[in-house]
Amino acid sequence: MLAEIFAPQSVAVVGASPDPSRLGHAVLRNLIEHGYAGPIFPIHPKAREVLGRRAYGSVLAVPDAVELAVVAVPARQVLHVVDECGQKGVKGLVVISAGFKEVGGEGREVERQLLAKVRAYGMRMLGPNSLGVIDTHSRLNASFAAIMPDAGNIALMSQSGAICTAILDWSKSRGVGFSHFVSLGNKTDIDEVVLLRAWGNNPRSKVVLAYLEDINDGPAFIAAAREVTRTTPVVAIKSGTTAAGSLAASHHTGSLAGSEQAYEAAFAQSGIIRAHTVSELFDLAMLFAYQPLIKGNRVAILTNSGGMGIIAADAVERSGLAMASLSQATIERLQRALPPSGSAYNPIDLLGDARHDLYGLGVEAALADPNVDGLIVVLTPQAQTELVETAEIIATLAARSDKPVVASFMGGYSIGPALAALNRNAIPSYTFPERAVQSLASMYDYVERSRRPPPNYRHVPVNLKEVRHVLTQVRASGRVELSEGEVRLVLAAYGLRIPESRLARSPDEAAHLGMQLGFPIVMKIASHDILLKSAIGAVRVGVADDEAARDSFELIDYRARKYWPGARINGVYVQEMVRPGRDLQISMSRDPQFGPLIATALCGIYVEVLKDITFGLAPLSEQDVYDQIRALRAFPLLRGADGGPFADVAAIEDVILRVSQLASELPEIVELEINPLVVHRQGEGAVVLDARIILQ
Amino acid sequence: MLAEIFAPQSVAVVGASPDPSRLGHAVLRNLIEHGYAGPIFPIHPKAREVLGRRAYGSVLAVPDAVELAVVAVPARQVLHVVDECGQKGVKGLVVISAGFKEVGGEGREVERQLLAKVRAYGMRMLGPNSLGVIDTHSRLNASFAAIMPDAGNIALMSQSGAICTAILDWSKSRGVGFSHFVSLGNKTDIDEVVLLRAWGNNPRSKVVLAYLEDINDGPAFIAAAREVTRTTPVVAIKSGTTAAGSLAASHHTGSLAGSEQAYEAAFAQSGIIRAHTVSELFDLAMLFAYQPLIKGNRVAILTNSGGMGIIAADAVERSGLAMASLSQATIERLQRALPPSGSAYNPIDLLGDARHDLYGLGVEAALADPNVDGLIVVLTPQAQTELVETAEIIATLAARSDKPVVASFMGGYSIGPALAALNRNAIPSYTFPERAVQSLASMYDYVERSRRPPPNYRHVPVNLKEVRHVLTQVRASGRVELSEGEVRLVLAAYGLRIPESRLARSPDEAAHLGMQLGFPIVMKIASHDILLKSAIGAVRVGVADDEAARDSFELIDYRARKYWPGARINGVYVQEMVRPGRDLQISMSRDPQFGPLIATALCGIYVEVLKDITFGLAPLSEQDVYDQIRALRAFPLLRGADGGPFADVAAIEDVILRVSQLASELPEIVELEINPLVVHRQGEGAVVLDARIILQ
Repeated sequence: MLAEIFAPQSVAVVGASPDPSRLGHAVLRNLIEHGYAGPIFPIHPKAREVLGRRAYGSVLAVPDAVELAVVAVPARQVLHVVDECGQKGVKGLVVISAGFKEVGGEGREVERQLLAKVRAYGMRMLGPNSLGVIDTHSRLNASFAAIMPDAGNIALMSQSGAICTAILDWSKSRGVGFSHFVSLGNKTDIDEVVLLRAWGNNPRSKVVLAYLEDINDGPAFIAAAREVTRTTPVVAIKSGTTAAGSLAASHHTGSLAGSEQAYEAAFAQSGIIRAHTVSELFDLAMLFAYQPLIKGNRVAILTNSGGMGIIAADAVERSGLAMASLSQATIERLQRALPPSGSAYNPIDLLGDARHDLYGLGVEAALADPNVDGLIVVLTPQAQTELVETAEIIATLAARSDKPVVASFMGGYSIGPALAALNRNAIPSYTFPERAVQSLASMYDYVERSRRPPPNYRHVPVNLKEVRHVLTQVRASGRVELSEGEVRLVLAAYGLRIPESRLARSPDEAAHLGMQLGFPIVMKIASHDILLKSAIGAVRVGVADDEAARDSFELIDYRARKYWPGARINGVYVQEMVRPGRDLQISMSRDPQFGPLIATALCGIYVEVLKDITFGLAPLSEQDVYDQIRALRAFPLLRGADGGPFADVAAIEDVILRVSQLASELPEIVELEINPLVVHRQGEGAVVLDARIILQ
Repeated sequence: MLAEIFAPQSVAVVGASPDPSRLGHAVLRNLIEHGYAGPIFPIHPKAREVLGRRAYGSVLAVPDAVELAVVAVPARQVLHVVDECGQKGVKGLVVISAGFKEVGGEGREVERQLLAKVRAYGMRMLGPNSLGVIDTHSRLNASFAAIMPDAGNIALMSQSGAICTAILDWSKSRGVGFSHFVSLGNKTDIDEVVLLRAWGNNPRSKVVLAYLEDINDGPAFIAAAREVTRTTPVVAIKSGTTAAGSLAASHHTGSLAGSEQAYEAAFAQSGIIRAHTVSELFDLAMLFAYQPLIKGNRVAILTNSGGMGIIAADAVERSGLAMASLSQATIERLQRALPPSGSAYNPIDLLGDARHDLYGLGVEAALADPNVDGLIVVLTPQAQTELVETAEIIATLAARSDKPVVASFMGGYSIGPALAALNRNAIPSYTFPERAVQSLASMYDYVERSRRPPPNYRHVPVNLKEVRHVLTQVRASGRVELSEGEVRLVLAAYGLRIPESRLARSPDEAAHLGMQLGFPIVMKIASHDILLKSAIGAVRVGVADDEAARDSFELIDYRARKYWPGARINGVYVQEMVRPGRDLQISMSRDPQFGPLIATALCGIYVEVLKDITFGLAPLSEQDVYDQIRALRAFPLLRGADGGPFADVAAIEDVILRVSQLASELPEIVELEINPLVVHRQGEGAVVLDARIILQ
């Protein structure tokens, strides 16, 4: 996929200057030096030859077909160049030139025109403002990066050219190889979604890395990522998450950063592994690229230092992985080989004088143990340590196993050659055992998640026409907030339980309806015009009998007319009184990048003081909702942890799924808040006691 | 201090074999090779000369004085050697030999004898089972480590020899220097407390690092650390904190790890900076050793990569530091120098083509800004980047400033010489900006803490004789749990408010006492023998008037006699009924390493479901208690966050301080639980409604 960018038959470099300080020159040199095999055409207005290649005045002057054009001319000339490329039949563009959206003002407008042209000619474009693209398989280095990465199975996209550079520099020092390397630039056409789909389930890329400052289309991103992550791990850094970071991000690229909660939810729901630091990104890249997936959570630690064994075991416990219980056979095998003060139990302590053959025996024994899913080899350089030999025997044995093996050789002065041997042999190595553990834990999370069945979305039949009619009427009357009656109609259409409510037009009718519903009842003025019903005493709770119902009708009617003169009054609602239960709050707002963000919390101090709120992005799958409720710190309360009854959690899940459907189907609703949702005992359902709906 | 260990006038190496594979030989070689200037005496039963030095059959045969003896003979010979050293007048011992406590059984007993001898001769001893000691000032390398660290201002103690080795290896590669380097071994005599006191407020050590698996004497450790950390930062790793880690720790050294909560409290109260990973330990070591202390929390970031600027700004916000708002003068100065698409706002973006002079201008401007307390310089290697020159200009300008400057040069392939220049010039450098930020944040925490006034301990006068009399009586009666009356006596002696309570011996007296206290009242059987008073209906709450008091007396008396036949009954307590308030739980248990651990929580779901509990170790200072209460997640509730009244927080603090005093003065009490402490409105105090006290 995207062969016109990653594996073109021929490449033109527009702006391929003979001046070595120009970017176009650097791109041409990279193409030639790193062995791109197809025809390369320098395009320059004056030069006859650049770097030994015949140059042309424009792409139109090239006698052969041009599949990819790399554009490195001043911004004001780009539109013209793109026209020529379109006429020439060029299929792919990599626009290095800067001076578009990122400079604001006119640049933004020119970028719009650029995209329109690209679309009109049916081309695909990377950039503008991109460092370029590298594909190690087609040996294409169409970038001005100073370093060519080794071939490998990591695909990387980055919204920051500088981060591309730093990653290249790091990877070269560790011998880490890439399949694709893309600087996204302003991602005007080709963006994170296009690349995710191109790289997912692609045998050349075992792992996809992404550095993102914003996301073009939140819902499309989630949909693509959900699919891709089922077969290919995706590790992403989203920067600009805190207030200060967002401010910096907007200085940097003029992008509007989405809310942190929405990003967290998007990554979690789509199965993307979120790295919070570049160092985490590297850690995971090595692990996924080099080693097989871990099949369970049981880890063995092998070390020549009891102290480091303790540190590593601590980290394992904290990470959510488990220390493997070695089988009796393994323990006996180790005991036969170890000196008496070594430890054949996990962490396996080979003692400070362990040589490479003892390490080899330990690695072999641990990997052969059916109770072990992954192995961490920790080494501190001591007098008798055989550094390189140990690295090599680990690599040899790891290559024969389908379990992941990672290493932490500690130090710096004497371990260089051993680290090089580990890198050469695809054993991820970490300066400290904690990072090895954390990386394995993230891998295990990924594996766990990819084993889940595909997401299941419930859909309830809804009379959308009727609902839209209500919303149209609200708009027609010039309001943005729905009245209580309108809210009831919308929620009822989505099958949410609301208290039974009938309209009484006289005191006697109120008494009669009260008897039908069963006392005690709630009575409330019925008027679109009166909003603060409780404040003026136009709501009465716990009306006990028919006489009280008659009295309440007249009192409510009197107060409404007195405090809201001129209000149109339809009568008084007589409503079922809801038994007390556990109060929850379910609300929906719209995130500018990701759309409907649904928040769940227990009412009262849980939401207000403890800020115990969980978030999800609609459309939510059943599994998403299951996770979202259980992520509440206060979840145990719904299971009777404070001595109360078990709450009907299934009913809460059902309400959230219906709200998710509503949010997806009715984009004109910008805000919805159910507060409280009264949740009864298990099997007894949940009732919406009050709710607000706001339109755009 | 400890000159007999760190700066002896002469050294004997007992077990200095001519065989180079022996540890004693390695120690002798290190002493000679690394330039120890005093006389060195090899001791060996047969050799006449080792490594060119005249050898002696025993220390007693040495003609001159011996101040320090390094002992590297088999364990079974150590006691004899120590006797000879004692007779010779040796003052310091470094025992390399292993085979003591760490092997269990007899080894433990031999170690006890060893300590007894050391004490009897008035010597100080490091080890046994130690890698040795290095002092770069006296050029003493009395260890078998393969590497001699450079001279510097970091003092390090480690309970793991392997970690010593790893740290040496790392430090050598970064050119990081040490003042003292100590492998604690079994720390039979010289332990963490002795070293803390020796290294605190010592101009040679700007920072103390410690790797600890356990702590010999918790209270002494806290006392020493509290003092030392006021002038010298102490960074410590305590390993073996989780269940798996503790298990490994006990395999490793046979030590009983203290509870994690106690360690957290001990480190927090004593001002020790806790590192959770070896990598954090290194990060902080470099920062404290190389740079001045940060005076405020406002950080500037200078970068040639907008993307990395965002990542760093995010990290600053998350860390609790603040992004400095640059002054107008600084912004204008930067704007004059920067290209238009650079950013003169913090993070300062010099753009990808920034050369060393632009970096220099940025560093100078940022450090001159009065709104900046510290600076992080981030660099990604790009085509025009002048790596080494940039490192050097940063170092030159940083050396003129009293603000800390740290660097994060990213990459690996091309930055080696630049990193070396940073190290050489005492600029801490971090692979990733997040780690630079985290280190500065820890430094700021340290500074904040060291500015606090010295801890203030309240002490209330207590009639200890009376309290001890009560406890003696409980023991005499063969019980471990105090009766309600006894608990009341103890708590009252410590000035805790308990409900007023009088003993009634007849129905009429109950009615009379009730009138005196004011109805409603609580009535309760008075008997040491009856424990489950509520269960048998021998407690009545809300007794409303004199008639009810008479009835209740007879009913309680009847039930007590019926359900606990033979119980000695003293009458019925008539008690003040406490108004409802906020219920807290204050409890004390004894940690095996640190002693009295005091836990505070709000009752109900806060403690049971949300596990919102904070801990402190007695004796608690006023500041400790202040922190402990405010660390509760539910603390805002005590400030009316749920609409309730402000609670009397000062009264809670007072209760905790009194419990702390009680725990310190009465070691025979192993457990105390006040549950609930009913806390009234601000200014209205707190009352102990129920409490238990358990003796050893």
